[in-house]
Amino acid sequence: MDSNSITIFSPATVANVSCGFDVLGFCLDNIGDKMVIKTTEQKGIYITKIEGYDLPFEAEKNVAGVSALAMYEHAQPDFGFEIEIFKNIKPGSGIGSSSASAVGSVFAMNELLGRPYSKTELTNFAMKGEALASQSEHADNIAPAIFGGFTLVKSVTPLDIIQLPTPKNLYAVILHPQIEVKTSESRAILPKEIPLKHAITQWSNVGSLVHALHTEDYELLKKSLVDVVVEPYRSQLIPHFESVRESALTHGALGCGISGSGPSIFSLCHGHSIAQQVAKAISKVYSKTNIDFEVHISEINTEGIKVLDRY
Amino acid sequence: MDSNSITIFSPATVANVSCGFDVLGFCLDNIGDKMVIKTTEQKGIYITKIEGYDLPFEAEKNVAGVSALAMYEHAQPDFGFEIEIFKNIKPGSGIGSSSASAVGSVFAMNELLGRPYSKTELTNFAMKGEALASQSEHADNIAPAIFGGFTLVKSVTPLDIIQLPTPKNLYAVILHPQIEVKTSESRAILPKEIPLKHAITQWSNVGSLVHALHTEDYELLKKSLVDVVVEPYRSQLIPHFESVRESALTHGALGCGISGSGPSIFSLCHGHSIAQQVAKAISKVYSKTNIDFEVHISEINTEGIKVLDRY
Repeated sequence: MDSNSITIFSPATVANVSCGFDVLGFCLDNIGDKMVIKTTEQKGIYITKIEGYDLPFEAEKNVAGVSALAMYEHAQPDFGFEIEIFKNIKPGSGIGSSSASAVGSVFAMNELLGRPYSKTELTNFAMKGEALASQSEHADNIAPAIFGGFTLVKSVTPLDIIQLPTPKNLYAVILHPQIEVKTSESRAILPKEIPLKHAITQWSNVGSLVHALHTEDYELLKKSLVDVVVEPYRSQLIPHFESVRESALTHGALGCGISGSGPSIFSLCHGHSIAQQVAKAISKVYSKTNIDFEVHISEINTEGIKVLDRY
Repeated sequence: MDSNSITIFSPATVANVSCGFDVLGFCLDNIGDKMVIKTTEQKGIYITKIEGYDLPFEAEKNVAGVSALAMYEHAQPDFGFEIEIFKNIKPGSGIGSSSASAVGSVFAMNELLGRPYSKTELTNFAMKGEALASQSEHADNIAPAIFGGFTLVKSVTPLDIIQLPTPKNLYAVILHPQIEVKTSESRAILPKEIPLKHAITQWSNVGSLVHALHTEDYELLKKSLVDVVVEPYRSQLIPHFESVRESALTHGALGCGISGSGPSIFSLCHGHSIAQQVAKAISKVYSKTNIDFEVHISEINTEGIKVLDRY
């Protein structure tokens, strides 16, 4: 076996996208983790370095380790892998931090193994890692990280991912309040049953959003980025959400909603200059509060996770 | 004012399309009503002939009359219209009988007036007639009759209709059991609240159905034509529904569901020969029952309502 090493960029992602709770997501471009994965003579999965945040080194307790182990047990190579994680996405930020870790290890290992696995198979392995973080297997952050652009998780069992088209010149502004919203709390706050009439509004919006992506109809995109089911509950957990949304829409955003289970808030914008205006306006809103925050602007990343370097 | 007369074909339609309750619909080709509309010197709306079924002649009590009056009051021409209705679609069949009437009069009047109104405006007028039949304004049968092909009612207030693409070579088989299912009963049987997890499945299916129409992906169309919300309730009102569906799917249908509020059952098929097989198979199922029935095969009508003759 040749010694082999690969460096990858594993992107942050936005799940739900207002109307598409649990099924829609899109991929960010310049926010993400770096990971270095090397083959080792010693069999097994070894996490040898973690920078940025304090996460467990034991593979069985680390999201990237669990997904790696799932693939490793399936592939059964006669060598092992060591994983270095340079974590930039804060855990619990709502922009797919655990997914980036879960995806990074399996994507890199697949490259080093000569790509035996499809993107859907990678998604399946990564979901094992995601399950460690969120107690349930879901793919709404994993799919956009692996496939890039906008994705629709048609079904989890069996796994069926649809890659949707991405209109040109589409930017996301991410506002990340430095507060903790526990995923368990943001799940618990949701009702088990919802009014049929709200459900109808939601599936009409999902249908028109998919049509808008296909037809690059930004006006329709704007009308479709509406969430009458989940946002009324979860927005209570995010301070100043309404003020941020109002400001984003006033300054030209197509839509503004909760990224995943929050606390991050995403705004979708047509064009970089509008994204800059929106970023400035919503920063101003949060500057008046006593909550620390970060704001990022990112083009929609149609490529997904990628190799930065290999040797 | 010149004397003027127009003959139109107003098509039957299928609403809901399994996953898209209250928002999706498509247009049929060779099933529909014929109507003749003539201008008259006398102001007003006059229904002068009704053949096929026993329906009221008073404009205020007739679906075609009510929609005609809505447009007439808006247009305020200095002449009137007389309407002859040759009704082929049985009222209460679940394939948009009242919509065909409501649409026919306003479409024809718009032609005679020189087309002052858009398709969306025609939909709005026709909804006034539909409301007489169903006690609520909805557009899921009207939109496909006017626009043709597949349509998505994005919103009713304000009215926003999206015309979706229609894949080539797509046929519907309609089985119409000759029983009465009251719309009021088929509405009353539905729950006011539904499980969130079923709603998620449904909006995932609506999203993938729209994607499948855009990409002509018949396999995905098949996977998307699933209704976990409404069909479990309404199918109880339609005798032998499960047997019909099983037979349709076994014989190659992409999907099989309740047309509107029933009792008609639609099957979507890729290609005419599969449609013929499905029609034969489901006819066999119903032949074994003591219920009279009709079966129609129709290509998806991408043109919608049309002028047959004018002089």
